[in-house]
Amino acid sequence: MFHIDIEQQKYLVDDQLMNLEAMWRRCAARVILSTTLAGSGHPGGSLSSLHILLLLYAVTRHRPDEPSWEDRDRIVISIGHISPGVYSVLAEYSYISEEQFLTEFRRAGSACAGHVEQGVKGVEWNTGNLGQGLSVGTGLRLGQELRGSPGKTIVMMGDGEQQKGQVAEARRFAAKYGQAGLIGIVDRNHLQIGGSTEDVMPTRVRDEYAAAGWNVLYVPDGNDFQCLFKALRRAWLHEDLDPARPTVLVARTVMGKGISFMENKAKYHGSTLRPDDAKKALSEIGFAPSLLDEWIDRRRGHRMIQAADLDHPVKWPAIDPAVPIVYGPDEKVDCRSAYGAALKGLAVANNPPGSVPKIVGFSCDLESSVKMSGFRAVSPNAFFEAGIQEHHAVACAGALSREGFCVFFSTFGVFAAAETYNQHRLNDLNETYLKVVATHVGLDVGEDGPTHQCLDYIGLFRNLFGFSIFMPADANQTDRIIRYVATHPGNVFVGMGRSKLPVITDDFGAPFFGEDYVFKPGKADWLRSGDSATFITYGTAVSEVLKAREILAEEGISAGVLNMASIKPIDRDAIIKAARRGPVLTVEDHIVHTGLGAIVAQILAEEGISQHFAAVGVTHYGSSGSPKELYVMQGIDAQALAIRMRGMV
Amino acid sequence: MFHIDIEQQKYLVDDQLMNLEAMWRRCAARVILSTTLAGSGHPGGSLSSLHILLLLYAVTRHRPDEPSWEDRDRIVISIGHISPGVYSVLAEYSYISEEQFLTEFRRAGSACAGHVEQGVKGVEWNTGNLGQGLSVGTGLRLGQELRGSPGKTIVMMGDGEQQKGQVAEARRFAAKYGQAGLIGIVDRNHLQIGGSTEDVMPTRVRDEYAAAGWNVLYVPDGNDFQCLFKALRRAWLHEDLDPARPTVLVARTVMGKGISFMENKAKYHGSTLRPDDAKKALSEIGFAPSLLDEWIDRRRGHRMIQAADLDHPVKWPAIDPAVPIVYGPDEKVDCRSAYGAALKGLAVANNPPGSVPKIVGFSCDLESSVKMSGFRAVSPNAFFEAGIQEHHAVACAGALSREGFCVFFSTFGVFAAAETYNQHRLNDLNETYLKVVATHVGLDVGEDGPTHQCLDYIGLFRNLFGFSIFMPADANQTDRIIRYVATHPGNVFVGMGRSKLPVITDDFGAPFFGEDYVFKPGKADWLRSGDSATFITYGTAVSEVLKAREILAEEGISAGVLNMASIKPIDRDAIIKAARRGPVLTVEDHIVHTGLGAIVAQILAEEGISQHFAAVGVTHYGSSGSPKELYVMQGIDAQALAIRMRGMV
Repeated sequence: MFHIDIEQQKYLVDDQLMNLEAMWRRCAARVILSTTLAGSGHPGGSLSSLHILLLLYAVTRHRPDEPSWEDRDRIVISIGHISPGVYSVLAEYSYISEEQFLTEFRRAGSACAGHVEQGVKGVEWNTGNLGQGLSVGTGLRLGQELRGSPGKTIVMMGDGEQQKGQVAEARRFAAKYGQAGLIGIVDRNHLQIGGSTEDVMPTRVRDEYAAAGWNVLYVPDGNDFQCLFKALRRAWLHEDLDPARPTVLVARTVMGKGISFMENKAKYHGSTLRPDDAKKALSEIGFAPSLLDEWIDRRRGHRMIQAADLDHPVKWPAIDPAVPIVYGPDEKVDCRSAYGAALKGLAVANNPPGSVPKIVGFSCDLESSVKMSGFRAVSPNAFFEAGIQEHHAVACAGALSREGFCVFFSTFGVFAAAETYNQHRLNDLNETYLKVVATHVGLDVGEDGPTHQCLDYIGLFRNLFGFSIFMPADANQTDRIIRYVATHPGNVFVGMGRSKLPVITDDFGAPFFGEDYVFKPGKADWLRSGDSATFITYGTAVSEVLKAREILAEEGISAGVLNMASIKPIDRDAIIKAARRGPVLTVEDHIVHTGLGAIVAQILAEEGISQHFAAVGVTHYGSSGSPKELYVMQGIDAQALAIRMRGMV
Repeated sequence: MFHIDIEQQKYLVDDQLMNLEAMWRRCAARVILSTTLAGSGHPGGSLSSLHILLLLYAVTRHRPDEPSWEDRDRIVISIGHISPGVYSVLAEYSYISEEQFLTEFRRAGSACAGHVEQGVKGVEWNTGNLGQGLSVGTGLRLGQELRGSPGKTIVMMGDGEQQKGQVAEARRFAAKYGQAGLIGIVDRNHLQIGGSTEDVMPTRVRDEYAAAGWNVLYVPDGNDFQCLFKALRRAWLHEDLDPARPTVLVARTVMGKGISFMENKAKYHGSTLRPDDAKKALSEIGFAPSLLDEWIDRRRGHRMIQAADLDHPVKWPAIDPAVPIVYGPDEKVDCRSAYGAALKGLAVANNPPGSVPKIVGFSCDLESSVKMSGFRAVSPNAFFEAGIQEHHAVACAGALSREGFCVFFSTFGVFAAAETYNQHRLNDLNETYLKVVATHVGLDVGEDGPTHQCLDYIGLFRNLFGFSIFMPADANQTDRIIRYVATHPGNVFVGMGRSKLPVITDDFGAPFFGEDYVFKPGKADWLRSGDSATFITYGTAVSEVLKAREILAEEGISAGVLNMASIKPIDRDAIIKAARRGPVLTVEDHIVHTGLGAIVAQILAEEGISQHFAAVGVTHYGSSGSPKELYVMQGIDAQALAIRMRGMV
C-alpha cells in the first residue's frame, strides 16, 4: 500500500511525486467516467479536491483490509457530493473495485451512492447536507481522545459550506476542548453552485477560523502535492503552531482542476460532461477516448452487487444497568430528576475513575435544568457542555455514539426536537445510537410560553425510521426506561415534562412501576381496567387521566386507562383490544392530530374497526402560564376529560 | 415623551441623565416585582440590559400611540427572556400600563408572556429561542431599505446566544447586503444559564463580528448611560466607521446590575428573588419594601385583560395574479419550471422598474435549480441570495414578510422543511406570511440519495397551525397555486418534485387544470371517476396512479382518482364520499405513516367509517438512483399500485 511517513519526511521525494501524479491521472479519469456514465454527479469539486484526497489517504494510518481498525485516523468527507473523487481514491486503495464504482455509481441499490455513504468501505460518515462534517469530526475525535487512541481526525470541507452556521459552532467546540488532533481542510476553490463564493455569500474563511482560536495555515496551491504536504506536515506536527489547538488548512484550489475546459467553471459543480466532452477530457489526461465506450458497455452488462449493510457496525458497549431506584407511592417527583438520578447511577456503575468511560453526556447550556449535574460530578471527563449550539451538539454526539460509547444528549424539547430535527435525521441515516432525552416537553413547560413549548415530538420523530419514542408516565417508569435505553443500541427519543408528578400506583396503592417492573418497547401498561371505555394516554397527561377516571368512577362509569410509554414501537394489540371493547379517547400533551391520537386512528382505520373514537390534545399554540391553566385552556384537564368521556359512553 | 436627539447631541446632559436614572430605578423595581410576583422569569439579564433598553427607546423614533408607524426605527429583542426589562421600559413609554404588566406577567392568556410577544405593543417580534433576532433584524432592515424608509433597525442580543450558528449566518448576510442601518448590541455580561460564558463556550465576540466585516465598537461600561450614548451615537452616525457596513456594540455589562447581591451571579439568569430578598432589593433602589405586598394584593384581585391579537397586523400588498400560463396536453414540464415561469410573470406584473417591489424572492445557493433566475432577472433588487444559510434565510424572509411584502423562499425540500422546521415554527408564532416553495421533494430527487430526499414535509408542516400545505400535480396546477398563494396572505408550504411530469388531462384529452381552473384550498379534484374504488393521491405520484388506473381499466376495474393538491386544509367531504363508495388506497411520495395516508385514516376513524383502506408510500429510507427505480423499490410505481388496488376490490 502506498504510504508516506509524514512524521519522518520533510518533503515528498520524486518517486512519491511520480506515484501521486500517476494515481491522480487514474482518479481524474474515474471522476470523468463515473459522472458521465451516470449522467449525474459532481465532477468539478471532485477534481478540485483530488490532490488533497490522494495525499490524505497516503499519509494517514488506515487498513483497507480492516476498515474499522480502531487506531486508524478518521477522515470525514463533509462535502458528500465529491463522491466521484472519494470513490476514485478508495479504488486506488482497494476499498472498492474500480469495476464496481464505474458500473454502479448512482444506481439504485448500489453502495456507490451519489453522496458518500458508509456502504463503501473507507467512508466514515454519510454526508450530503452541507456543514455537518466538522461537527462529526469533533465527535469522532472525542472518541479517540476518550480512548487515548494515537490517531488523528481530518475533516475535508468545501468553502461554500463554511457559510453554514453549524460550522461556526463546531469550530468553537473543537477550540474549547483543545482538539489539537483535529485537522480541518477547506477546499478553497471560490466557487459554489450559484457561482463565485464572493457573489453568493462572501466569507472570510481564514479570519473566521482565527477568530475561533484555531491555528490557520494557508496553502497557496492546493492542487500541488508538495505544497500540500508541507502544510499538512506542519499541521500534523504542530510546527510553529499552538500545540493545544486544532488546525485548519485553507487550500487554494481550482474547480475542475486538470481538465482545461472545466477549470474555474461553477457549472461543473453539479453538471457532468457529455460523452464527447468526456472523451476530450480523457485525452487531456492521457487516456484513450474509447475508454468511455468500453465502460458504457460494461455498465450496461453489469449485475449490481448488493449494497452491504453499514460496513463497520457500531460497537455497543456492555452497560451495567445498575440497581433501579424505586420511588414510593407518596412521593411527587419530576421525571427529569428521576432521569438525572438514573444517569448518575449508570455513571457510577459504568464509568469507574481511571478507566475509559462507557457512558457520555452532552448538554447545551441547560445541564442543571435537564438534571445532568449528578452525572457530570461522577464523570467530569465524560460530560461535554456544547453551549447554545444544538445543531453541532446533535451531530457531534451522534458521531461519538458510533465510536463505541453510550451517548446521552439532553436539552429542552424544542431544542432536542424542532430545532435539531434534521441533524437527528442525518444521524439516523448514519445508524447512530444516540439517546436523546428531552425534558420540558409539552404545555407542561408552562410560563416560558409558546416558543418553548414542544408539542410536536411524536409528529417529528415518527418520521425517522430508526428512532424509538418512549414517554415515561412517572419517576419509576423514567428510571426503568433510562436503564433500558442505556443498555440497548439504537436511536431513541425519551420525552418528559417539567412538573413534579405523583408516583403512579396500582389498585393496591403500591407503585405500579415497582421493583418487579421491566420496561418493554411495544408493550402498553393497563394502569386501570374498565368495562365502559378506555383512555389511551402517556406521559404528563396520565395523572390528569387518572383523576378523570376517579370522577367518572364516582358516577358509576368504569373507564380503563392504557399507558403507552412506548409510542414507537406501539402496542397495536392493546389498542385493538381496547377499541373492540368500547369507546376510545386518546389524551396527550401534544398536538392532537400528529401524536398518539393519530397513531390510534391509523390503526383503527387499517383494521377497519368502527368504534366511537376521539382524540384530546393541543389544538392551538399555547400561552404563557402555569401548566394547570394551560391544560384547562386546551381541555386536557381532568374535569374536561371526564366530560368528554361521559359524552362517549 | 422622553426623547434624546442622538444626531444633534454629542453627549447626554445632566437633566437627561437624571431622567434616565429615575426611569432606571422605576424599571428595576418593576423587574424585581414582576418576577417575584410571577414566581418565575429572568431578572438577572433584565437588569443587565436595562440601561441599554432605556437608552434605545429614548433615542429611537417611535410612536407609542401608533406602534405600527411605518417610519419607526425597529427594535428587535433577540433575548426574549428579558421580557421583565422590556415590559418595564415599555411601561415608561405607555405602551402598556404598569398595572397590567405587574398583575398579569406570566399568567395564562395575558399579553405579558414569559418571553416577549407582540401582544404587548412596541414588541416587534416574539422571541424566546435564542440566536434568532439578528436574522429577524436583517429582514426588517430589508423592508426599510426596499421602501427607502429613514429608520434604523437595532437588535438587542445576549452574549450567550452569540454561540448559535445562525448568528454567524445573519452577520454575513448583513455584511453582504451592506446593511449600514443595522445596529447590533450585545449585552456582554459574560454569564449564561450554565455559568461563565468562558466556561460554557468561549466566544470571541468582537473578533467574530470583525471577521464578518462589521464595524465593532466596544462599550467598556454598558451600565453607564453616557458611555453607552457615545458609542451608540458613533454607530448611528458611522463616525470613524466604515459607512457601508453594519455596526455592533459589544457592551460590557453586569448581570443583575444595581442589586448588590444579584450582581454577577449566573443563578439570577432564570431564578427569581424570594419575597424577603425582593424587599431588600427594592430598598436598595429607594423603594419601600411594602410595595411588594401592595402588588401581591393587586395581583390577587386583578381580572385579566384579554390578550389582543397581534398588535400590528401584517400589511398585505395587493398583488396582481397576472395571466395564468396554460400548458398543453402534449407538454411534459417539471413543476419547478412552471413555478419559475409563474413567479417571473408575477414579478413583471407587480415589480415595475423604479417602484418599490411587492414580491420578493429568497434562495440559498440554488437559484437555478429552484428556477428563480427568471424572477431575479426581472427584479434584481428584490432577489436575495442568502448562501448556504437556510436557518438565517427563513427567519430573515419571514420577518420581511411582516413588512408588507409578498415573500417567496425556495430551496430543496430537505432544506426548506427538515433543516429549517423550527425557524418556520417561530415564524408561524409571529404570524408571518412566508411562501415556502420547496422543489426536489420526495424520492423524486433521485440520485442525490437519502440525505437529499425530503419524505416528511407533510409530517412536519402539519404541526404548524398557521401553515397551509399545497402539492400541485402538474405544471398547470403549479401555475395556479403559485398565483393563488401570491395573492393571499398566510404561511404556506408548496412542494414539488424534480422530474418532468405529463400535463394532466380530462376525459376529453384537454388539460384538466386548464384555462378555467381556479385553485381552491380545501377542494380536491376528481381527476377520474370510478365505481369500484378510489385512489387518493397528490403531487408526483398522480402520474403513476393515472397509469395504474389504466392498467386496472383494461381489466374492467373502474377506480376513481382523487387529487388532494390541498393537503392542509383537506377536503374532508371528498374523502368521506370516496370511502362511503368503496375501498380507498392512498398513494404518495412521502413517508407512508405521516402523510396523506395518515390524514385519511384519521378522518375514517373519527367518522367511524369501516372501509377497506390501505396506504402506499415510502416505508424505508430511499436509495440513490433514478426516481423510477426508487418508486419500484418502494412499490409506488404503476404496476405495484395496480396490483395493490386489485387486491382491495
